[in-house]
Amino acid sequence: MRPSGRAANQLRPITLQRHFTRHAEGSVLVSFGDTQVICTASIDKSVPGWLRGKGQGWLTAEYGMLPRATHSRNAREANRGKQGGRTLEIQRLIGRSLRAAVDLKKLGEYTLTLDCDVIQADGGTRTASITGACVALVDALRHLQLQKLLKKDPFEQFVAAVSVGMYQGEAVLDLDYAEDANCGTDMNVVMTEDGRFIEVQGTAEGQAFTRDEMNAMLALAEEGGQQIIALQKEALRSL
Amino acid sequence: MRPSGRAANQLRPITLQRHFTRHAEGSVLVSFGDTQVICTASIDKSVPGWLRGKGQGWLTAEYGMLPRATHSRNAREANRGKQGGRTLEIQRLIGRSLRAAVDLKKLGEYTLTLDCDVIQADGGTRTASITGACVALVDALRHLQLQKLLKKDPFEQFVAAVSVGMYQGEAVLDLDYAEDANCGTDMNVVMTEDGRFIEVQGTAEGQAFTRDEMNAMLALAEEGGQQIIALQKEALRSL
Amino acid sequence: MRPSGRAANQLRPITLQRHFTRHAEGSVLVSFGDTQVICTASIDKSVPGWLRGKGQGWLTAEYGMLPRATHSRNAREANRGKQGGRTLEIQRLIGRSLRAAVDLKKLGEYTLTLDCDVIQADGGTRTASITGACVALVDALRHLQLQKLLKKDPFEQFVAAVSVGMYQGEAVLDLDYAEDANCGTDMNVVMTEDGRFIEVQGTAEGQAFTRDEMNAMLALAEEGGQQIIALQKEALRSL
Amino acid sequence: MRPSGRAANQLRPITLQRHFTRHAEGSVLVSFGDTQVICTASIDKSVPGWLRGKGQGWLTAEYGMLPRATHSRNAREANRGKQGGRTLEIQRLIGRSLRAAVDLKKLGEYTLTLDCDVIQADGGTRTASITGACVALVDALRHLQLQKLLKKDPFEQFVAAVSVGMYQGEAVLDLDYAEDANCGTDMNVVMTEDGRFIEVQGTAEGQAFTRDEMNAMLALAEEGGQQIIALQKEALRSL
Amino acid sequence: MRPSGRAANQLRPITLQRHFTRHAEGSVLVSFGDTQVICTASIDKSVPGWLRGKGQGWLTAEYGMLPRATHSRNAREANRGKQGGRTLEIQRLIGRSLRAAVDLKKLGEYTLTLDCDVIQADGGTRTASITGACVALVDALRHLQLQKLLKKDPFEQFVAAVSVGMYQGEAVLDLDYAEDANCGTDMNVVMTEDGRFIEVQGTAEGQAFTRDEMNAMLALAEEGGQQIIALQKEALRSL
Amino acid sequence: MRPSGRAANQLRPITLQRHFTRHAEGSVLVSFGDTQVICTASIDKSVPGWLRGKGQGWLTAEYGMLPRATHSRNAREANRGKQGGRTLEIQRLIGRSLRAAVDLKKLGEYTLTLDCDVIQADGGTRTASITGACVALVDALRHLQLQKLLKKDPFEQFVAAVSVGMYQGEAVLDLDYAEDANCGTDMNVVMTEDGRFIEVQGTAEGQAFTRDEMNAMLALAEEGGQQIIALQKEALRSL
Repeated sequence: MRPSGRAANQLRPITLQRHFTRHAEGSVLVSFGDTQVICTASIDKSVPGWLRGKGQGWLTAEYGMLPRATHSRNAREANRGKQGGRTLEIQRLIGRSLRAAVDLKKLGEYTLTLDCDVIQADGGTRTASITGACVALVDALRHLQLQKLLKKDPFEQFVAAVSVGMYQGEAVLDLDYAEDANCGTDMNVVMTEDGRFIEVQGTAEGQAFTRDEMNAMLALAEEGGQQIIALQKEALRSL
Repeated sequence: MRPSGRAANQLRPITLQRHFTRHAEGSVLVSFGDTQVICTASIDKSVPGWLRGKGQGWLTAEYGMLPRATHSRNAREANRGKQGGRTLEIQRLIGRSLRAAVDLKKLGEYTLTLDCDVIQADGGTRTASITGACVALVDALRHLQLQKLLKKDPFEQFVAAVSVGMYQGEAVLDLDYAEDANCGTDMNVVMTEDGRFIEVQGTAEGQAFTRDEMNAMLALAEEGGQQIIALQKEALRSL
Repeated sequence: MRPSGRAANQLRPITLQRHFTRHAEGSVLVSFGDTQVICTASIDKSVPGWLRGKGQGWLTAEYGMLPRATHSRNAREANRGKQGGRTLEIQRLIGRSLRAAVDLKKLGEYTLTLDCDVIQADGGTRTASITGACVALVDALRHLQLQKLLKKDPFEQFVAAVSVGMYQGEAVLDLDYAEDANCGTDMNVVMTEDGRFIEVQGTAEGQAFTRDEMNAMLALAEEGGQQIIALQKEALRSL
Repeated sequence: MRPSGRAANQLRPITLQRHFTRHAEGSVLVSFGDTQVICTASIDKSVPGWLRGKGQGWLTAEYGMLPRATHSRNAREANRGKQGGRTLEIQRLIGRSLRAAVDLKKLGEYTLTLDCDVIQADGGTRTASITGACVALVDALRHLQLQKLLKKDPFEQFVAAVSVGMYQGEAVLDLDYAEDANCGTDMNVVMTEDGRFIEVQGTAEGQAFTRDEMNAMLALAEEGGQQIIALQKEALRSL
Repeated sequence: MRPSGRAANQLRPITLQRHFTRHAEGSVLVSFGDTQVICTASIDKSVPGWLRGKGQGWLTAEYGMLPRATHSRNAREANRGKQGGRTLEIQRLIGRSLRAAVDLKKLGEYTLTLDCDVIQADGGTRTASITGACVALVDALRHLQLQKLLKKDPFEQFVAAVSVGMYQGEAVLDLDYAEDANCGTDMNVVMTEDGRFIEVQGTAEGQAFTRDEMNAMLALAEEGGQQIIALQKEALRSL
Repeated sequence: MRPSGRAANQLRPITLQRHFTRHAEGSVLVSFGDTQVICTASIDKSVPGWLRGKGQGWLTAEYGMLPRATHSRNAREANRGKQGGRTLEIQRLIGRSLRAAVDLKKLGEYTLTLDCDVIQADGGTRTASITGACVALVDALRHLQLQKLLKKDPFEQFVAAVSVGMYQGEAVLDLDYAEDANCGTDMNVVMTEDGRFIEVQGTAEGQAFTRDEMNAMLALAEEGGQQIIALQKEALRSL
C-alpha cells in the first residue's frame, strides 16, 4: 500500500481550469491533487536576436514558486537576487518539452512565454506545470488564429508529463510529496499523444534502479500520460 | 461619471477568501474587483539578529507580482536578479502598515512574514495587499494561540487600506487601473479601526493638488476604510 | 519645547551654495542645519528608449549617501551590490517631485539627471535633496538656454520640500535626526510656489495620527514650504 | 555510418591521467576523445550548517568551462556575474551521481568538493566529468585513509557515465559534438558497477523517441558503462 | 612648457581641511588643485573573522566617485550593481598604502575604515585620496587615544602619494587631467617620511619608458612626496 | 640562500607549449616552475561600441583561476557572482601589457581576447600569464594573416613579464609562492624587447623599499626579461 492509499497506477485528481486570470492569452490553473500551478502563455511580437529575420518563432518558459507554496517558507528568489539551480533546471525542462508541441516555423516571428508559478506544492510541480502549460499554449495559439495573425496552425501535438517512482519495490504513478520523500527513485516522463517520449529523467538519490524497474516505471508513465492527454483535450473542448 | 461607472464613494466588490492555500498559517485570496492577491502569513521561530534576546518579535512583508498579472508581461524579478524600486517601496509600506496591527512585545521571539503575491492586477494592488495581509495575520496569530504558544494576544487593531484620487475635479474612491491612469492625483491611505491614519501617501505625477482636494480625498478614504474593516471582521467571524 | 530648542514653526538655517563643483551643468551644496547634500544636475543629449522620437525630454534622479554621512558607518551600496529599498524609494520621490517643476515637452530630447549625494546626515535628507536639486535644475536649464539649445523655457514652477512631525502632541516643522527619532509621526511634504502639493507622505511607525494632527502638520508644512521657495529664488538671483 | 566513423557501440579513446595538478587531494585529467576535463577532489574539514553535529559528511560538485574550450568563445560566467542554467544543471547532476559512490555516514564530518573544469569541449563534457571525478574522488579518499583520518572506507562503488543517441535511426554510443548536433535524441546515463542506473536523462529536442529506441540506447549505454568502469579501475591500479 | 603652465617639479596647490564632516572620527577634505576628495576614517570595535582573537587590528579602504565628479556623468556603481575594476584597484592600493602607516599589532581589535569619495576629479584622485586619508587616519587614532582606548600609539609614519609622468620627453610632477591624457607614461608613487617607497606603479599605455626616464620620474616623486608630508604635518599641528 | 635554492638571478624552468587546446586561434600552456597557466587568444570579428567604424581593433584580457589551483580551495568566482578585486586588477594589467605588443590601427576591426586561466599556482601567475599570452597572441595574428584577413602585420614587439623581490636584503628574480610569502617587497615588471618598461608595479606590504633596492630589483628584472623574450622567440620558431 502506497502512502496516499491510491492504487499503484492511479493518478491524483487532475483539474485544468482555463481562463483563470484575464490578461494572459492563455491562463490555466492546473492541479494534480494538492499541487496547484498557475500557467500563463504570453505572446510577444518579437523574437530573440539570434532568430530575427528568419521568419520563425520561439517558445520559452519560466518557473517560480510562491515563498509559502511549501510546508516551510522558502526565501523569495527575487530577493536573494538569483534563481536557484532547481528553478533553472525545471524551466529549461518545461521549455524543451513545450517546444515539441509546436512547429516554430509555422509560428512566425512571435515569442510564446510560458510562466508556471506554483501556488501550492505537494510533489510533481514540474509535471503539473508542463501539463497545464500545454493547455495554456493551445489557448494562446487559438487567440492568434482568431486574430487572423497566423496562416497555419503551428500546434503539432499534445504534450503531457507525469512522475513515476519505486516505492517499496513496486512502481507507482504520480508521486505526491510524502511518496516522493520515501521513494528511492523518481522519474519524470514527458510524452506525446502517439506514445513517444520527449524527456525521461530518472534519478536515484537513494538507491540505484535496475533495467526491470525502469521498464515497470515507464509502463506506468505511458498509461498515465495517455489519461492526462485525454484530460487536456477534454478541458479544451469548450471555448 | 467615472470610468468604472461606480459612484464616487463606491468601493469595488471586495472578497476575502481565507484558507486559500494549505501550508501557510494564514492564507487569504483578496480581491478588489479584478485585482487579486494571494496573502500568506508565515511564522518562523526566530528573530533577526538585532532583536535576538530581547524577548520581542518582528513582522516583515514581501511583495511580488506574477509576470503576467498585468496587461503586458513584465520581466520576472527573480530572473532580472533584483527587485525593482516599486516592489521594494510597496513591501516596505506593507510591513510598516501591518506592524501597526500588532504589539511586537507580546509576540515573543517569532517573526511573521507576510507575502503578498499579485496574480491579477487592475489597480490598487498595494491597498488590496495590506487589507488581505491583515486577515492572514489574524489567522496566523490564532494558530499560535491554538498551539498555546502565546501568553497574550498580540493583535492590537485592524488595519485596512484604500486608494483615492481626483478624477475630473472630483474625489473618487478605490481606483481601478483605467481610473488610476486618468487621475492627476492618486493617494493611498492606511487606516485603523478608530479612524486614525498609519500611512498617507499622495502623489501628483500629473497635476498638483490643493488642500481642499486633499481633504475631499481623505474624507472618502475614511469612509471606505471603515467599510473595508467591516469586511475583514466579517471574513474572520467563522473559524 | 522640542529637542532642538527651535520654535515649532521654525526651520533650521538653510543654505544653497551654487556652483559647488565645476563639471556639472548645475551643482548645489544644500544644507538644512547639519544635513548637507551635494545636488548636481547633468544634461545628456538623449532620452530613454521608450521616449525616442517623441520630441520630449526626461528627468530622473539618483540618491546616495557617503558611508560615513551618518553617526555610525553604513555599508557602501556599490560594495553590497545593490541599492537598498530606502535609497530607491527616496530617488523615486525626488524624480517624481522634480518632474513637476519642468514641462518635459518643452525640454526637447534631453535627459536631466539629478544626483543627490548626502555628505552629512542629520534628518531630512530627502527634503534637502529635493530643495537643492530644484536649484541645480534651474542652473542646468539656464545652461541650455545660454547655449541656445532650447526654444522655450521648460521651467514651470519652483518645488520645495520639508518635513513635519508630531512631537509630544504638537506639530513641529523640519525635524532633525534627534527629533525624528522621537516623533510618533513624520510627514514629508513637497510643494509648489502656488501652495499646492506634489507629494504628501505621512508615516506613523510609532503611533497613528488623527485627521486634526494631519491638518496641523500640513499647515506648518505650507508655511515652511513658502519660506524655502523664497530662499531658492534668492539663491538664484545672481548668475 | 556515423560521422565519427566509429562503430555504433564504440567508445572514443578514453584516458584518465591522475595526479594532473599537485595541490588537490585528487586530480585527474580525463579525456573522451577531444573532450578534456580537469577533475579535482578537495577535502574540507567541515560540513554545511544543516549537517553539523550529525557525524556524517557531504559531497558536492561544481562545473565550469574555460571560455575558449568551445569552437567560438563563450562569455566567462564569473564576468557575467552568474552561472547559467546549463552549468547549474550539470553540476547538480555530477553531485547527485557521485554521492551514489560514497557512504556519507562513513565519511565523517568532511566535505568533498569535486570541481570539473572543461578545458576542451567536443561533446560529452558531463559524462567525462562524472567519470573523471569518480577517479579523483577515490584518490582523495585514499589520501584521508593514508592520513589515518577515516575508520572505515566510505567508498561504495564505481560510478561512470556515458552518452548515447539516435543517429539516422540507429542507436550510437558516446556522441562527439558533431554527432550530438545531428542526433534527434541524446541520453546521458550514469551507471554503477553492478549494472544499475543512477541517472537516466533522455532529451528529444528534435524528434520524440519510442520505447524501442530507448531500449536500444540503454543497451548500448550498459555495455559502454562497464568498459568505462574497467578503465577507471585500471587507472587506479597504481599508486 | 607643460599644459598647466607649472614648472616640471611644481605641485598643484594642496589643501587639507580637517573636521570637514562631523560624524566620522577623522574627516578631511583634500584638494590637489581641482581634484577634491572627502576622506573619512571610521573606527569599528571589531575585526574581520580571520583576525578575531589575535589581539591585533585591521585597516581597510573604500573608494568611490560621485557620478558627476567628472566631465561627463558616470553611471553610479551602486546602481550598476558592482564596483568596476578601476575602483577596486584603487581602493586596494589605498588600503595597502595606509597599512604601512600603522602598526596593526598596537591598534588592538579595532578596524579602521578609510572612505575616499571623490567629489570633483581633475587627475590624481588616488594620490589625493592616500594623502588625505593619512591625515584622517591620524585624527581617528588621536580620537582613540583621547578616549584612553589605546595603550600605545599605533601610528608608525606619514604616508603620502603623488603622480609623475613623462610629458614631451620631460618628467613632470603631479599631473592634472589634461596632462595625464597627454602623457605616454604615468606613475603613482607612495612614499614614507624617510624617503622609502610603499608602492610604485608605472604604466605605459601609450609609449614604453626607459630606465633613465623612470629614474627622472622617481626623483621628482621623491621631492614632491617630502613637500606633501610637510603639508600633512602642518595640517595636523592644530587640534 | 633563497628558499628555492636558486641563484638570485636565476629563473625557474620556463616552458611554452603551443597548440595546447584546439579551438582557439592561439593556445599556449605556459609554466614558470610549478605555476601553470592556459593562455588562449580568440579572434572576434567586431569591436566594442565606442570603436565601431574607426577602422581599428581592440585587445582585451580576462584572468581566472581554477578553484583548486591553490593549496587550499578558493570559492569559484562564477558561483560567488562576482570577480574579486585581485582578479580584475590582474586582468587589467594583462590587457594593458599586451596592447603594447600590437598596433591596434593595423589590426582592423577585430577584437582579440586573451584568456589566462591558472590551473596550478605557485607564485607569479600574472607574469606567467603575460608571457604566455604574448605567444598565443602571435599565433592568433599568424592565423589572421594565413587567412589573408590582414594587410599589414600588427605585431609590434614582444612583451614579457617577471617578478622580482627583496629576500633578506638581497634582490631575487622570479619568486615562487614560498619566496613571495617571505619577501618584504614584490615587484612585477613588464618589458619590451628593446629593454623598455610597460609596467612596473612594486608593492611593500611588509617593509618599505629604498631607491637602491629598487634599482637592484630592476636590474634583475631587465636581465630576466630578456631571457624570457628569447624563450618566446624560440617557442615561435616552428609552425
